[in-house]
This record gives sequence, C-alpha cells and structure tokens, in this order.
Amino acid sequence: MSQWKQIQQLEMRLLEQVDYLYDDNFPMDIRQGLANWIEAQDWDTAADEDSAAAVLFFSLLSQLEAALSREHNFLQRHNMKIIQQQLQGKYANNPAAMARVISNCLNEERRILSTACMQQQKSLQN
Amino acid sequence: MSQWKQIQQLEMRLLEQVDYLYDDNFPMDIRQGLANWIEAQDWDTAADEDSAAAVLFFSLLSQLEAALSREHNFLQRHNMKIIQQQLQGKYANNPAAMARVISNCLNEERRILSTACMQQQKSLQN
Repeated sequence: MSQWKQIQQLEMRLLEQVDYLYDDNFPMDIRQGLANWIEAQDWDTAADEDSAAAVLFFSLLSQLEAALSREHNFLQRHNMKIIQQQLQGKYANNPAAMARVISNCLNEERRILSTACMQQQKSLQN
Repeated sequence: MSQWKQIQQLEMRLLEQVDYLYDDNFPMDIRQGLANWIEAQDWDTAADEDSAAAVLFFSLLSQLEAALSREHNFLQRHNMKIIQQQLQGKYANNPAAMARVISNCLNEERRILSTACMQQQKSLQN
C-alpha cells in the first residue's frame, strides 16, 4: 500500500496534521495524483544536489503534462494548468527548493504514520 | 441549463478564454461547486453596494461551510479549506472586491457564450 493510501486511513486528528503540510509550495492534488511516482523518487538526495533536483523537477513537469493530456474534465484540467504554472514560477530557477519541500512532506508523513502506529500498539498492549 | 453547464459545452478555443477568468481571486472549484447558487445572486448590485456585498460574502462562506460538512474526501476537504482561508484573507475587509470579481466572471462568461451562439447561427446561415 502506498504511503499516501496509509495516510488517508489515519484518524481525523492526525489527518489535520497532514493538512498543514500541503499548500501552494506542494499542492496536495499532485501528492495524490502522482502518489506512486513521487514515493519512488529520491527527494532527500535531490534536496542537496542541484543536478539531481533539476532532473526530478523536469520529470515532475513531464508527469504532470502526461496527466493533463489524459484528463478531459474542464475543472481538473484548469487546476492542473494552474499548478504547472505555479511550480514553474516557484522552482524553475531553484529546483532543489522543490525537492526540499517534497522531501520534508514525505518525512513528516512518515513521522505522523509512525506516531499512529505506536499509539495503536500501545492501545493493543493495554 | 445553468450558465456553467453551457460553458462546459463550448469548443476548446472558447473554453481557453474561460480558463483565463479563474484564479485565486475566484477559484473555479467554487464556480463549479456552487454554480446554481452563484448564478442566482445579484453580484452586479453587490459590486457597487458594500452592505449587499457583505451579505453575499458571508452567504458564500456559509455555502462553502455547508459543502465542507458534506464532503468526506480528504483531498477535496483540504482544497475547500484552503479556498475558505484564501477568500477570508482577500475579501473579509473588502467584500465588494469579491462581488466585482464574480460579477466580471459571470459577465465575461455570458459574452463568450453569446460569441459562440452568434458563430453557430452564422455557420447555419452559410
């Protein structure tokens, strides 16, 4: 099961922590739409290496372009085009910043999931 | 048929003109989610009258709150909460500005629809 699917099974209190991770810097629409691809990339390395970050930045744009070409819903297409423009505006000159944001989101998600796991184990022991 | 439904039946070239009308100032998610309610309000009057604009601003927030309470999808809820915050940040102190934006969008949509209608009639006459 993808990390993102596990996240969505969390209780409301923990989901609200996830809510705070996502904004224009890394829209949740992308996190959900490209969940498996995002989780398969090495964002931690890209956060520290400009060349790796540039490769991932252009790969992400290409993933979005492919998703856009498959999308026929007018509202979804509109939102995807806005997200493409936002990412290009924010990160074209600094892709490592995008890698840091995504790396941070994924690490925070893992922290929240492990908190949930530990709470569950604790309640089973009691 | 609502104006918004008519819009979505336009050809791509005209749909792209609609695309440009919608951004953070008036997100298309709201235009679609509250299409009938939005089309039933008098935004032209509210654009010139602060008291009418304030009533419509709080009514819109209340419509959004009701939609949020019915929504169970995590991503959709997240996006709706962001839109609520954006609208409050942008227009709480100047609701007439929101009314002007919405009034302008609806008028531009009508202009685009009438262009499409005239083009259709012209092609039928030839």
